[in-house]
Amino acid sequence: DKTIRIALIPGDGVGPEVMAEAVPCLAWARSRGRNLETLPLPYGADHFLRTGETLPGTAFAELRDGCDAILFGAVGDPRVPDGRHAEEILLRLRQGLDLTVNFRPCKPRVPRSGPALDIEVFRENTEGPYCLQGSTEPGRAIDLAVHTEPAVRRLLEAAFDHARARGCTLTLAHKANVLKHGHGLWMRVFQDLQRTFPEVPAKGMHADALLCALVQDPSPFGVIAADNYLGDLISDLTAAFVGGMGVAPSLSWAPHRPHRCSALAEPVHGSAPDLAGQGLANPVGMLLSTALLFRHLGWEPEAGALEAAVAEALEAGARTRDLGGNLGTVAMGAAIRDRL
Amino acid sequence: DKTIRIALIPGDGVGPEVMAEAVPCLAWARSRGRNLETLPLPYGADHFLRTGETLPGTAFAELRDGCDAILFGAVGDPRVPDGRHAEEILLRLRQGLDLTVNFRPCKPRVPRSGPALDIEVFRENTEGPYCLQGSTEPGRAIDLAVHTEPAVRRLLEAAFDHARARGCTLTLAHKANVLKHGHGLWMRVFQDLQRTFPEVPAKGMHADALLCALVQDPSPFGVIAADNYLGDLISDLTAAFVGGMGVAPSLSWAPHRPHRCSALAEPVHGSAPDLAGQGLANPVGMLLSTALLFRHLGWEPEAGALEAAVAEALEAGARTRDLGGNLGTVAMGAAIRDRL
Ligand SMILES: CC(C)[C@H](C(=O)O)[C@@H](O)C(=O)O
Ligand SMILES: CC(C)[C@H](C(=O)O)[C@@H](O)C(=O)O
Repeated sequence: DKTIRIALIPGDGVGPEVMAEAVPCLAWARSRGRNLETLPLPYGADHFLRTGETLPGTAFAELRDGCDAILFGAVGDPRVPDGRHAEEILLRLRQGLDLTVNFRPCKPRVPRSGPALDIEVFRENTEGPYCLQGSTEPGRAIDLAVHTEPAVRRLLEAAFDHARARGCTLTLAHKANVLKHGHGLWMRVFQDLQRTFPEVPAKGMHADALLCALVQDPSPFGVIAADNYLGDLISDLTAAFVGGMGVAPSLSWAPHRPHRCSALAEPVHGSAPDLAGQGLANPVGMLLSTALLFRHLGWEPEAGALEAAVAEALEAGARTRDLGGNLGTVAMGAAIRDRL
Repeated sequence: DKTIRIALIPGDGVGPEVMAEAVPCLAWARSRGRNLETLPLPYGADHFLRTGETLPGTAFAELRDGCDAILFGAVGDPRVPDGRHAEEILLRLRQGLDLTVNFRPCKPRVPRSGPALDIEVFRENTEGPYCLQGSTEPGRAIDLAVHTEPAVRRLLEAAFDHARARGCTLTLAHKANVLKHGHGLWMRVFQDLQRTFPEVPAKGMHADALLCALVQDPSPFGVIAADNYLGDLISDLTAAFVGGMGVAPSLSWAPHRPHRCSALAEPVHGSAPDLAGQGLANPVGMLLSTALLFRHLGWEPEAGALEAAVAEALEAGARTRDLGGNLGTVAMGAAIRDRL
């Protein structure tokens, strides 16, 4: 049983606070016989302001070839103008490690009334406007959104696969009537995969109409696939249905495993500078991301146990402030780990 | 008192059905002494399929220089692949007439519980990816989003002006951390106008976080300004709060009045091919758009009366199917006009 090496990048703001709640879960997995070791890394605003380094090339190579996965807190700090270091770290990891698939499940975490809800967003994670190509001239600015067939196909294959396994519908969010080129490519690959997966009820929907339909009634939706930009928007929107960004997890991975490191788990919330340093952040998004990583590593019992512990703690009424309660980060983390 | 000439473009699908409910409101305004005449134009799918023409140059010139405003139904028809004629008509009008500002108010039309809500979206209407520039190569496709300072400034000035007059907040939706160039330009103009309008409480918000916040609680928002793409998405989302797309109106205008024709009123809903020909479409979006046009022409009494008639009809329980009732288009239109 080879050692699984997990890099820990707490990052900025509330990142280190929620990471501190996840680390004991790794120790718990080890205590249950999982062969893992961790590699804590200091990258983020403090390191950048001290050294001028965002994510040095040697560290990136060590992550890529010397680790199996990354557990990530959040990056972003008001002391760094334009969040420059943030995108250099986060987008570099997503793109440099070819983490095409960003999986963002939206299941109700907090007991709620209304119809059942189980939306899972598959967001392409490396392309679109996140390629950061463009130009600024006097009085005029242009951004490019780049889409390539291999990435689009990998994302959609993962989404179709998942919808087939779950036996649910697949909705492709697009705006092909305007983004003729990029979303034209998405539509062609989508139609191609509809032939490969005839058993999946799949349809495309204009993103504007989709947002309206989601807000009116999210219950009919199952898997939603989208490009990087729309996926960013839609997954934050759907997070609002299930308790907000504080409870939303994500896992990114490279289905074609081009490197040793092929997965990154991170909560959907950001560094939340306003909240940082007060011990008030909700660790649920981080802990559920850790569970997604366990599942990705094949550690299903640990993944299921951690998700169950979160569900039981929330059912028992444990709540951080964003959920209307008064537990701090540490107490919320403890309420969950006590149930492991 | 010079004659106001209003072009009528019913278009496709449910467009002609809802237009038929608006036309008597124009006659009513005339009966009250408003000096107006109408110019019905046939452009849309039928005309395109019969003649190959979308919006011929002579017709465009007649609209631009021979009319004061356009009342527009909807375009889009499944018989025309990719909706080609639709964008050639609608985007040509928005762009060719420089209709930079697209105003989409979201006020609750149907009585609802919960906190008060009065969101007004100012969407830039001519640029971003709607410039339709890009390229498709084998395995790779690129769309460009173009932003120019004059259009951004006109849109934001209109939004600041309106927020100042209303005494409400202004939120700029952006993703400047990714769309460095285009949204970088938006941020610069926004910050510049914050200095010109110091009395308006204005702030920028990342679009992803904004969508989550809107779904969690839309009540704190006042004016929301956005580029063309985000404005399209956000205005459909907020329409869901107030009864759906069937009741959402819009008015586009050119603040700098470069042509005689400087405004276009159209419902936010599209041609809804599934619903077309059945007399079931909701005319409220169209009638409220007509009211916005009346106001734009300086006919405030007629604008207010038409809005009040809509409100009274809805309060009295008049409902089309999309609102859970069983009135058809004509009966709903009559229920409203009876209250004029
Ligand atoms: C911080 C930002 C660049 C990032 C994104 O847009 O992808 C974030 O919003 C997310 O969703 O992970
Ligand atoms: C039909 C389509 C091109 C249009 C748009 O995206 O602008 C529509 O969705 C709208 O909002 O008016």
